[in-house]
Amino acid sequence: MRVGILGAGQLGRMLALGGYPLGARFTFLDGKADAPGAQVGKIVLGGFDEPEKIAELARRVDVLTFDVENVPARAVREAGVEALCRPNLAALETGQDRVAEKQSFEALGIPVAPWRAIETADELLAALDELGLPAVLKRRRLGYDGRGQRFIRRREEALEAFGELGGGDLILEAFVEFEREVSMLGVRAASGETRFYPLSENRHDNGILRLSRAPSAPEELAASAREHVGRLMEHFDYVGVLAVEFFVCGGQLYANETAPRVHNSGHWTIEGAVTSQFENHIRAVLDLPLGDTGCVGVSAMANLIGEMPSTPALLAIPGLHLHDYGKSSRPGRKLGHATLVAPDEEALAKPLASLLALAWPAAQARTSAEIVEC
Amino acid sequence: MRVGILGAGQLGRMLALGGYPLGARFTFLDGKADAPGAQVGKIVLGGFDEPEKIAELARRVDVLTFDVENVPARAVREAGVEALCRPNLAALETGQDRVAEKQSFEALGIPVAPWRAIETADELLAALDELGLPAVLKRRRLGYDGRGQRFIRRREEALEAFGELGGGDLILEAFVEFEREVSMLGVRAASGETRFYPLSENRHDNGILRLSRAPSAPEELAASAREHVGRLMEHFDYVGVLAVEFFVCGGQLYANETAPRVHNSGHWTIEGAVTSQFENHIRAVLDLPLGDTGCVGVSAMANLIGEMPSTPALLAIPGLHLHDYGKSSRPGRKLGHATLVAPDEEALAKPLASLLALAWPAAQARTSAEIVEC
Repeated sequence: MRVGILGAGQLGRMLALGGYPLGARFTFLDGKADAPGAQVGKIVLGGFDEPEKIAELARRVDVLTFDVENVPARAVREAGVEALCRPNLAALETGQDRVAEKQSFEALGIPVAPWRAIETADELLAALDELGLPAVLKRRRLGYDGRGQRFIRRREEALEAFGELGGGDLILEAFVEFEREVSMLGVRAASGETRFYPLSENRHDNGILRLSRAPSAPEELAASAREHVGRLMEHFDYVGVLAVEFFVCGGQLYANETAPRVHNSGHWTIEGAVTSQFENHIRAVLDLPLGDTGCVGVSAMANLIGEMPSTPALLAIPGLHLHDYGKSSRPGRKLGHATLVAPDEEALAKPLASLLALAWPAAQARTSAEIVEC
Repeated sequence: MRVGILGAGQLGRMLALGGYPLGARFTFLDGKADAPGAQVGKIVLGGFDEPEKIAELARRVDVLTFDVENVPARAVREAGVEALCRPNLAALETGQDRVAEKQSFEALGIPVAPWRAIETADELLAALDELGLPAVLKRRRLGYDGRGQRFIRRREEALEAFGELGGGDLILEAFVEFEREVSMLGVRAASGETRFYPLSENRHDNGILRLSRAPSAPEELAASAREHVGRLMEHFDYVGVLAVEFFVCGGQLYANETAPRVHNSGHWTIEGAVTSQFENHIRAVLDLPLGDTGCVGVSAMANLIGEMPSTPALLAIPGLHLHDYGKSSRPGRKLGHATLVAPDEEALAKPLASLLALAWPAAQARTSAEIVEC
């Protein structure tokens, strides 16, 4: 049961920490010897675009999976190890291209906000006329944590945004005046067995996830999200955890984007669900029975971004679970997260207020207050 | 926050798995490169009796702690690293000598069954006359999992037992007709902050722990156990997790033995308590605030001994948490454990029956049935 992971970031580290108890062993491919995964497993030093490095990793393991979704599928194919990948490359490639992703949603009857593929400035101006303002212009590929996208409020901003994003290979999306952002995490085994976590409700700030809370009501939305994600997983003959982010608007879900891997909005499952998303992903890729995805209370997970708060101060909060990824500080960088689990929302309120006071600097107090009141 | 662990067994592995999320890093000293801890940390190859190897480990870390209690204190002193040890060597040494241990219990007013230190055959025969039959003759040092002890039913068996155990450096203990065996795990920080887990109830078979269940009633016994363990921890200025096993006889606790480390009867805390014994031990040795020791339901932990049951069969049991240490099979060897947590005893009964049917071979069915009905 040797698992190879492309990427040794915090997701890789948490996959390994969740998988060792199952008897699995972990080797990572990463460009950095001090990446978080290297703390807890062996590492092959190399880039995701180097087929020979991917082949070297593959020789040392029984199955390959992903810490990052932006691994070039071509490099994996050139390495001749496509058959070892869980999830498969088709699912990976679709998640890498916002246009292919929207097309999949639509083909499977999953509602999305209106969108247009954009190659030229003329196409952008025409699309703005059709979709209206405001709208969001995004790179088709390689965007994450709010990077590679521009919010267009006025028609005059369009050409500057087009130029900044590289001019071409873009997608324009109508802006959804959403009430809430939620995500559904499903997990599917090679056998076709499928399980779903409770819906998470997510708050972002500058495109970066700050807070996830679960379970999120109402049950009708969760049922609808399970149906959508289940259809995607079946379509791709998916193996592993698949995350889909949705906007909630007028009581209706609109699919925003997928991540063909464990997801930040599911970190609360480590302590807040019977089986974590990390353990369940490893169970799935090793073709083991899936674990119980039920939750054990109400959970809140806050990302620790840019600079780590004091460890003793965090750990002094009753019941707090700290996850320090061991990364160096940098503005906007996810350095860790902290989770609280309580029997009910009332019991969660006080420790959560203490956590957010530490996690988010005073300068962001107003934003934090907005984020909290979900 | 670099932690050095003397011994890279399953306890070391679980200490590391529990400690990485806090931002700690782990290096082990062990004679085997394929020991469980080596999966998840760096390893210094060497024996516990080699001061230069202990010194080498110490140079690479900020603090030293123990996976095994039988590390020779002399070797640690010769290495000149006594000050780095948590818990301290006095606590370690007392736990290594059953006579010193009993003397500590008595000095602190903690009830123990009558006992005598035994150096000669004459002393043994005299002690048997005083304590009565049956009685248990044990080596003072290096016993674990029921090894190094003989049960004496008749006076005629005494001299054979004396010879088998090496003749001298022994202890004779009056046999306690106990109703139950329980253990209390306490954790103490350098600051003196102290926390206790709920009482575990334990069933042994041939001296090896098979099943622990927690929390164990009644509360009066737990309160009494907390007082005893708290007194021991204060006496030793203890830092870390300390486990004490007690016999329950006529509603009264009799201290049996201590373990100056995390303990098998506390493995259920990984999923069954808010903060596991492993994380709390690491918090304590790193002088961080201790975590909540409350339980999140009722738990049962079964050891997987000698041969691992089928992993898919185990994981098919709803809610089961598997811990496969990655060790090779050998009769009597602890290869892993599995834990179940449920809201109440009724909900626990069915998955526990499924677990025990897999964990304990049919040949032991009668014993298993006896063990279960606690």
